[in-house]
Amino acid sequence: MVRFLTVSYQGTKYAGWQRQPNAMTVQERLEAALSEFLDGNVRAVGAGRTDAGVHARGQVAHIEKAPERQAALPNAALVHGTNKHLPRDIRVLAAKRMPGGTHARKSASSKLYAYRCIRARVLSPLDEIDAIPVDPSIDVLSMREAATRLEGRHDFSAFALSGGTHQSPVRRLMRAEVREDGRQISFWFEGEGFLRGMVRSMVGTLLEVGSHRREPAWIDTLVAGVDRSEAGPTAPARGLTLERVFYPISSAR
Amino acid sequence: MVRFLTVSYQGTKYAGWQRQPNAMTVQERLEAALSEFLDGNVRAVGAGRTDAGVHARGQVAHIEKAPERQAALPNAALVHGTNKHLPRDIRVLAAKRMPGGTHARKSASSKLYAYRCIRARVLSPLDEIDAIPVDPSIDVLSMREAATRLEGRHDFSAFALSGGTHQSPVRRLMRAEVREDGRQISFWFEGEGFLRGMVRSMVGTLLEVGSHRREPAWIDTLVAGVDRSEAGPTAPARGLTLERVFYPISSAR
Repeated sequence: MVRFLTVSYQGTKYAGWQRQPNAMTVQERLEAALSEFLDGNVRAVGAGRTDAGVHARGQVAHIEKAPERQAALPNAALVHGTNKHLPRDIRVLAAKRMPGGTHARKSASSKLYAYRCIRARVLSPLDEIDAIPVDPSIDVLSMREAATRLEGRHDFSAFALSGGTHQSPVRRLMRAEVREDGRQISFWFEGEGFLRGMVRSMVGTLLEVGSHRREPAWIDTLVAGVDRSEAGPTAPARGLTLERVFYPISSAR
Repeated sequence: MVRFLTVSYQGTKYAGWQRQPNAMTVQERLEAALSEFLDGNVRAVGAGRTDAGVHARGQVAHIEKAPERQAALPNAALVHGTNKHLPRDIRVLAAKRMPGGTHARKSASSKLYAYRCIRARVLSPLDEIDAIPVDPSIDVLSMREAATRLEGRHDFSAFALSGGTHQSPVRRLMRAEVREDGRQISFWFEGEGFLRGMVRSMVGTLLEVGSHRREPAWIDTLVAGVDRSEAGPTAPARGLTLERVFYPISSAR
């Protein structure tokens, strides 16, 4: 049995998920809260590194190492006990038990990211936490046409920031959707894995199409494995949220 | 000509819209920003008092008194200049000119409020700014049936907090809708005017119905003008947002 946690955070103040020297990260805060609550050293492994400033509604982490009493604790007690030691911008939403050997990152079948934009010249303080403003006249239909061309198995080198640790730039993108709800436009990407900066770079590229600086067919040349400099700019981190991580295995209890 | 401003704020840190002694309010902050930018004493009148902790996406205020140069300033210059003097949780989203004599509160034909809830035991830090958590099993269909019974012209005494300045407790509620989008449940109320605390009290009452502690038909007895103590509890301020104020007059330019 291994314990899985669903973790949500407002990434604004953090240098991303992954623990690193000289910067505060979500992983470090979560491990500290678990260690305090369980009164011993706890290690937690996340499903995906989120970059500095990126949010999560459904990051997943498994507990890799913890004091023995952890195993006997009911899920609800673990959730509420840990939350008491977390800052307000991080919350454990749920806990569940998964079959032994299940790994938050390696066992994940896919991840779902959302990127939120609001058609507005000035953004409402209620929206600015996890969205960016876009030109009110931006063209959703052409962005939808472009997004469809991103779907499938491609060489996404054009959308990768340097510094990633991946061996191959080929990824399968199962879903690239553009949704519209009132003044909100959101981009939804589901994939088996993403290169570093890939989602924000796809969004920056789609926004180029939406503002008619490029044609939807431009995407076809980009997914053929061209250089990063060919694609659109990288959209700001604050609009991006890791919404969900999917696993092929169902929970034990 | 009178200048109208659309104002959005995260109400968390404020004692409501309306200026008052010994507490920081949105009106005071906005007037201070306008006064600094226009280099003279400015008075702004809001369409509705929002209570402490209540948010706005579309509060409207007209400029009642300002230095002469205000009249010549283009709308965009006024918006951006004022925003430079406002804290991050208040933003002027737009400005427009309305026919002389138009009054933000007195000329309004109706106001639209939204109250947001999330089906969750623990709320995501991304949602908690303007939503409250509700029992995941809450019943939307019976809340919808109950909401319909609120619509129309009624004596809303059962939903009024004491301390309001209204002469009659009769109001016309044009719209009471319950929307569902994923895990979010939102209540939308449009009315010519609202008694003090009325929206939050209607929400608290609908949540009683949604959790099956009351029947939808209970609403019929409440809108017959019974005492406040008969209705449900008042829902927390943080879920409530003034979304829009409607005017029968179109803008001059």
